[in-house]
Amino acid sequence: MNRERLIFLTNDDSYRSKGFEAAIEVARHFGRVIAIAPEAPQSGMSQAITIYNPLRLRKVRDEEGVTVYALNGTPVDCVKMAFDYLLTNEKVDLAISGINHGSNAAINVLYSGTMGAAIEASFYNIPSIGLSLTDHDPDADFEGAVKYGVEIVGKVLEKGVSLPCCLNVNVPNIPLAEIKGVRISRQTRGFWREEFFLRTDPHGREYFWLTGGFQNAEPAAEESDEWALANGYVAVVPIKVDMTEYRQLEELELLL
Amino acid sequence: MNRERLIFLTNDDSYRSKGFEAAIEVARHFGRVIAIAPEAPQSGMSQAITIYNPLRLRKVRDEEGVTVYALNGTPVDCVKMAFDYLLTNEKVDLAISGINHGSNAAINVLYSGTMGAAIEASFYNIPSIGLSLTDHDPDADFEGAVKYGVEIVGKVLEKGVSLPCCLNVNVPNIPLAEIKGVRISRQTRGFWREEFFLRTDPHGREYFWLTGGFQNAEPAAEESDEWALANGYVAVVPIKVDMTEYRQLEELELLL
Repeated sequence: MNRERLIFLTNDDSYRSKGFEAAIEVARHFGRVIAIAPEAPQSGMSQAITIYNPLRLRKVRDEEGVTVYALNGTPVDCVKMAFDYLLTNEKVDLAISGINHGSNAAINVLYSGTMGAAIEASFYNIPSIGLSLTDHDPDADFEGAVKYGVEIVGKVLEKGVSLPCCLNVNVPNIPLAEIKGVRISRQTRGFWREEFFLRTDPHGREYFWLTGGFQNAEPAAEESDEWALANGYVAVVPIKVDMTEYRQLEELELLL
Repeated sequence: MNRERLIFLTNDDSYRSKGFEAAIEVARHFGRVIAIAPEAPQSGMSQAITIYNPLRLRKVRDEEGVTVYALNGTPVDCVKMAFDYLLTNEKVDLAISGINHGSNAAINVLYSGTMGAAIEASFYNIPSIGLSLTDHDPDADFEGAVKYGVEIVGKVLEKGVSLPCCLNVNVPNIPLAEIKGVRISRQTRGFWREEFFLRTDPHGREYFWLTGGFQNAEPAAEESDEWALANGYVAVVPIKVDMTEYRQLEELELLL
């Protein structure tokens, strides 16, 4: 028999979230699990790293095949701590980030702590998969996300994939029986537009809450991840980290 | 005479940094300046947004042509607060983020709060320019960065550029007279590898400091931004926000 596989796990909702347990369930299908997850929720933390504060790591769970550490940092800190410190003597087969409570489709990939961690893990020469469910409820139903998570991770591990590989997997919040399957997609164009709720605290000082909504610039684009989700598919977008806009190089050569 | 131009300004080193004053100097060449900058340093904050905490905005400076607000949030929060709240009745001509103390070339674009803000500002249908100097010193010499900042912003404003436009401009830390000019570049391939410094606090508890170095995967690539900087050029990389790895779509269609 082959050596048991090792799956690294992290997320952005903290090690105490229901989605994190769902990710453990996915990963346990394939081998041993070592996780470093944030102590506190880190939604919207993007690819942020901790520069000004010390990091503290503590083991919060150690049972047959599942070891979980909590770190008082960002999702990307968790990944760096794993691959440049804790697991330098281990061979990790794959990284999973999630399962996120809430969609990371479209431009959300840029703000998402879940995807920040998934992107970071792909820098360490392993396939990396960010899993998200389009439901922010802390008690969301992860049945469909677990089922498709297992299917996608299984195919990546068993058939192999060319590296670097980082997948942004979003699962629609509908009953498992209604999910139509996996749809390879591209990032939807569109941006968030925010509303700031102005309130006054008991000391008479004003403050704001940031909130807003995603404005889909191409709701009819069948190749986009938002379309896939809206039409009952699991959307899978391969992510790259070269942000150069090659099409603009020539214009800039003339301009500057 | 035309209406006076309006430049929006932000950064990630806070409104009290020397580089922020240098950015005001750049912007003042072109018109009125309204800035929202972080209260506290936000280096490494990437595209992070503040979800769990209220935001407080206060005016910290108001003089002829220059108004500065401080916000207790991330660089991206500052941009959203500007374009979705404070400046919704103004026509902004261009956004500048910086001038950052430290390089944002190569993969740093993903971690950078400066570039997070520059990217965010480009979502509001204006040209957006992130300016960085490859020197972390709080008292760094911004002469070259100001000179080239003025040159680049001037050309973008006067000749125009196709939108969306987000430029990642990095200036080498050498005397102005030795800078060879502007070089349009692409993002250098390579990743950070971290070292975690383990220490023990006076209470006997261990903690880590995150630190590390960038590993350039292609130091000889003359089209890369790191090469440009190492060879005395100002590196300009146009940034896009569609992170889809199109070349991998077909492989995934077969795999999943």
